[in-house]
Amino acid sequence: MASVKKAPRRTAERIMLASLELFNRFGVPNVSTTMIAADLGISPGNLYYHYPAKEELINGLFKRYEGALNELLPASQGVRDVEDAWFFMHSLFELVWQYRFLYRDLNDLLSNNRMLESHFKTVLLNKSRAMRQLLNGLSSSGAVRIDAREVEATANNMVVVVTYWLSFEYVQNPRQALESGNAQQALLRGAQHALQVLAPFLETSQRQHLLSLSEAYSTETPTP
Amino acid sequence: MASVKKAPRRTAERIMLASLELFNRFGVPNVSTTMIAADLGISPGNLYYHYPAKEELINGLFKRYEGALNELLPASQGVRDVEDAWFFMHSLFELVWQYRFLYRDLNDLLSNNRMLESHFKTVLLNKSRAMRQLLNGLSSSGAVRIDAREVEATANNMVVVVTYWLSFEYVQNPRQALESGNAQQALLRGAQHALQVLAPFLETSQRQHLLSLSEAYSTETPTP
Repeated sequence: MASVKKAPRRTAERIMLASLELFNRFGVPNVSTTMIAADLGISPGNLYYHYPAKEELINGLFKRYEGALNELLPASQGVRDVEDAWFFMHSLFELVWQYRFLYRDLNDLLSNNRMLESHFKTVLLNKSRAMRQLLNGLSSSGAVRIDAREVEATANNMVVVVTYWLSFEYVQNPRQALESGNAQQALLRGAQHALQVLAPFLETSQRQHLLSLSEAYSTETPTP
Repeated sequence: MASVKKAPRRTAERIMLASLELFNRFGVPNVSTTMIAADLGISPGNLYYHYPAKEELINGLFKRYEGALNELLPASQGVRDVEDAWFFMHSLFELVWQYRFLYRDLNDLLSNNRMLESHFKTVLLNKSRAMRQLLNGLSSSGAVRIDAREVEATANNMVVVVTYWLSFEYVQNPRQALESGNAQQALLRGAQHALQVLAPFLETSQRQHLLSLSEAYSTETPTP
């Protein structure tokens, strides 16, 4: 059979998706462009034609993440009760999971890549703002009572949990934590912990509702 | 002048201290044994005689960290009020700062080092236990009111903030966050955020006391 020649656009997209999967599984420092080419069954030269350096793959994937995040974060402005907050936080964790390689070796990625260095700073600022908006929305609907002096630190803590929850799971189980079979449980635990930061500020019925949501979806703590 | 020959024990210690400083400043992946030898003005062969591989330096420093941590953590059992909690958290952050290289590239260190992989898991478990003890101590003295179902997630969140606060600052300012001139401010912000996780559970006068401590030591949020 004659081999079918793939259009360049399609090959570029396949390279992106394969890179994302390999970066997620093994971490950027442990994946070479040669591995990516081998995984796709294309020649290193063909890969090089589309992406002359690994950094371009990283940056391309980062831009997709940034774009998806910028679409999602404004939804924080519509959060009025615990159900909304729960849904928002799970959507956010799903996105973080999809691009978990960025968080796995974040500091090392930043120290070698100026584009990431400047853009990731903005990612965290945008997340902090979204969390403040979420807290303000819950305040104005009466679901949350929080001292104005506590909003910033609480929002920052929510961002720290969103940003580093998967790393925290990784330390406890480096061989499995980031494998896709673990996704559902890890995301639930992450969202639950991020919401726990704001839980004590909820008024009684909302707080009970959060506890029952958490119990309904309860997951075993990973046994190290 | 005749050069004074250093005793081997002393040289080994100097190597350890120089490694700690270089790892902290530049990150483990960016420091070679050749750089450490050059920094000390000794030959690579001399360094090799004491530590045949970089991994032994990392492991030696980790053991010092682990030892210091095991001495400090039991103090969580004596925490009865906000002042105790404040002091405990600052001591913990001072220790984390001293060995901040471990947290800078944590996931990468773990994926290449079996000893760290197994011991770091224990470090996090011990920290979680200490935070639960701290919450229990504050509960039994009446300083904190917390639903038993919320203790574990709250303790985990405190550990996430203690473990990743410096990384969070690093993302916001990779060129300066981990430099020693920044230590005092970074430690204060970290301790303050870790304590903010438990703040809403404090009874009114203790909560006011924490707010006034935070304001007294208040630090600018790092401007990215």
